[in-house]
Amino acid sequence: MAMTPRETGSVEIIKSGPWGHKSLDDRVVIEEPMELRIGGESFVDTMRTPGDDLDLAAGFLLTEGWIERSEDIGTLAYCPDEKDPTLKNIVDVRLVDGKMPDDTARSARSTWANSSCGLCGKATLESIHQACRLLEDSVTVSSQTILSLPAVLSEYQANFKATGGIHGAGLFNRDGGLIGVREDIGRHNAVDKVIGAALRSGTLGDAAMMIVSGRLGFEIAQKALVARIPIVASVSAPSSLAVDLAREFGMTAIGFLRGESMNIYSGSERIEGM
Amino acid sequence: MAMTPRETGSVEIIKSGPWGHKSLDDRVVIEEPMELRIGGESFVDTMRTPGDDLDLAAGFLLTEGWIERSEDIGTLAYCPDEKDPTLKNIVDVRLVDGKMPDDTARSARSTWANSSCGLCGKATLESIHQACRLLEDSVTVSSQTILSLPAVLSEYQANFKATGGIHGAGLFNRDGGLIGVREDIGRHNAVDKVIGAALRSGTLGDAAMMIVSGRLGFEIAQKALVARIPIVASVSAPSSLAVDLAREFGMTAIGFLRGESMNIYSGSERIEGM
Repeated sequence: MAMTPRETGSVEIIKSGPWGHKSLDDRVVIEEPMELRIGGESFVDTMRTPGDDLDLAAGFLLTEGWIERSEDIGTLAYCPDEKDPTLKNIVDVRLVDGKMPDDTARSARSTWANSSCGLCGKATLESIHQACRLLEDSVTVSSQTILSLPAVLSEYQANFKATGGIHGAGLFNRDGGLIGVREDIGRHNAVDKVIGAALRSGTLGDAAMMIVSGRLGFEIAQKALVARIPIVASVSAPSSLAVDLAREFGMTAIGFLRGESMNIYSGSERIEGM
Repeated sequence: MAMTPRETGSVEIIKSGPWGHKSLDDRVVIEEPMELRIGGESFVDTMRTPGDDLDLAAGFLLTEGWIERSEDIGTLAYCPDEKDPTLKNIVDVRLVDGKMPDDTARSARSTWANSSCGLCGKATLESIHQACRLLEDSVTVSSQTILSLPAVLSEYQANFKATGGIHGAGLFNRDGGLIGVREDIGRHNAVDKVIGAALRSGTLGDAAMMIVSGRLGFEIAQKALVARIPIVASVSAPSSLAVDLAREFGMTAIGFLRGESMNIYSGSERIEGM
C-alpha cells in the first residue's frame, strides 16, 4: 500500500487520566476533499483520507456503474490544483467511450452516491436492484481460510495502529491469498480503494473474499456485488438491507467474524462442509 | 426512548465455531428509507432505522439550517404511504414561514446532506464555515462528569445490546444529567434524532455535552456546532477536520473517552481543573 505521511497528522492534545493530565502529540486520520473529474469536467467531491487516490477513483467508477473493466479507463491522473500546485486533491479520468458527466448523470450519481453513504431513496434501491445481477460462480472456501482473514487485515492496517480511527478493507483470493488492503476514514472509500487497486492491477477477477473492519452495511454489500466478489465478511454486524441484498443476489454474507467463530447470514453453500 | 419491534428484525443464520455449526435466529438492525416532505413536497430520502422519525426530521431540519428553533415548525407528522398505508416511512413538516423545497434549496441540501455523511466538496466546507458561529458560552464540567458518560450511553443503548450493530448518541446537561439517548444505523441519524428529540421537548438549551458511540467525524462535530452543544465526546477517534472545526469554533472535542482516561483535542478550558 502506498503510504504517505499525509494519511495521518499530528495534533497537540491533553491526555487526562487518573494520573492527572499532560500535553502530548497525538496522531489523527487526515480527511480532505478530493475532486473527481471526468474528461476534465467536475463530477463529484468526496471526503477521503489522502493516498491511493487513483485506486479510489477507479473503484468508485466501477462500483457506481460508470465502467465495467479497467480497459474502459483511458487515462487516470492527478490534475494540478490551480490554487496550490503542491496539493494532489484533483483526479481526472478520461473514459475510452468519451462519456462525460452531463447533468442527468450528475443527478443520478448524486442519488447513488447518497446511497453509498447512508442516504438514499426507494427509487435508488429499485435502480440498484435492477442494475445488479445474480452471482453464479462456483467459489468455495474453507472455514479456516475465512477465520484467518481478520488477522491479516489487522496486520496490514498501519494507519489504524497509529490512530485507532480509520476503516480497512481487504481482498483475498479463494485460497486466502492477500490481493490487497486499503484504509480510509470512510468505510465506502476503503472498499472503493481496495476494489480499484485490484481493478488497476488486473487482480480483481481473482477476488473471492472481501473483509471490512466496520459494519457490513447495505452500501458495502452493494459495492461488492457490483465488483462480483461473492463472499463478504465483517468483524462486526450486518444491517437488514445488506442481508436482504446478499440473499437476493446469491452473495455469501458473514458477520461477527471474530476468533474462531462467525455468523453466516446467507450463501453458506460457499463454505466447505456446511 | 420510543422502542418499537421494527428497530430490529430477526433473521435465520448459521453460527459456526469450534463446536461445529448450528442454525439459529439472530437479531439485525433494520434500515429502511424514510422520505421527508416539506409542505407536502418531497425533500430528501434518508436510510434510517425506523423509530423516532419525528425526532430525526426535526433534528435534520435544525442541523441543516432549515429551522433555528422548534417554533419554526408548524406541524410535523407521518403521511400515509399510498402504496402501503401500514407503513410509517413518510414524514411531512409544515414550516411556519411557509418555506418550500424549491430546486435551489434541494440542490444546496444535496451538497449539505452529502457532507453530513462523508461526501462533500470544498465549496460545502466553506459554506459550513460561513454558516457557523463561535461558541461563546461559559459552560464548565468536571472530568468525573465526562468520564461517567459512556456508562450511561451504554445502559440506554437497548438495540446495540440486541444487535451489536447500531450507533448511539446521548445528550447531557452540565451536571451530567441525561437529556436523552437515541440509536440509529447511521451515526449522523443518531445525532439528528437525539438533537431533534431535545428540540421538540424544549430541553436542547440545557444540552452541554453530547457523547457518540462511533468516531468523532467532521459531520458529528458540525451538527453539534449548529445545535450549539459546546462539548462533544466520543469513545473512539476524532478526524483531523473534526478537530479543526472544533478548534476554529471554540468547541470542546474529546476522543477515546474510556475507563478513567480521555484525550482532549480542543477547548480544555471547559474542563474544571485544567
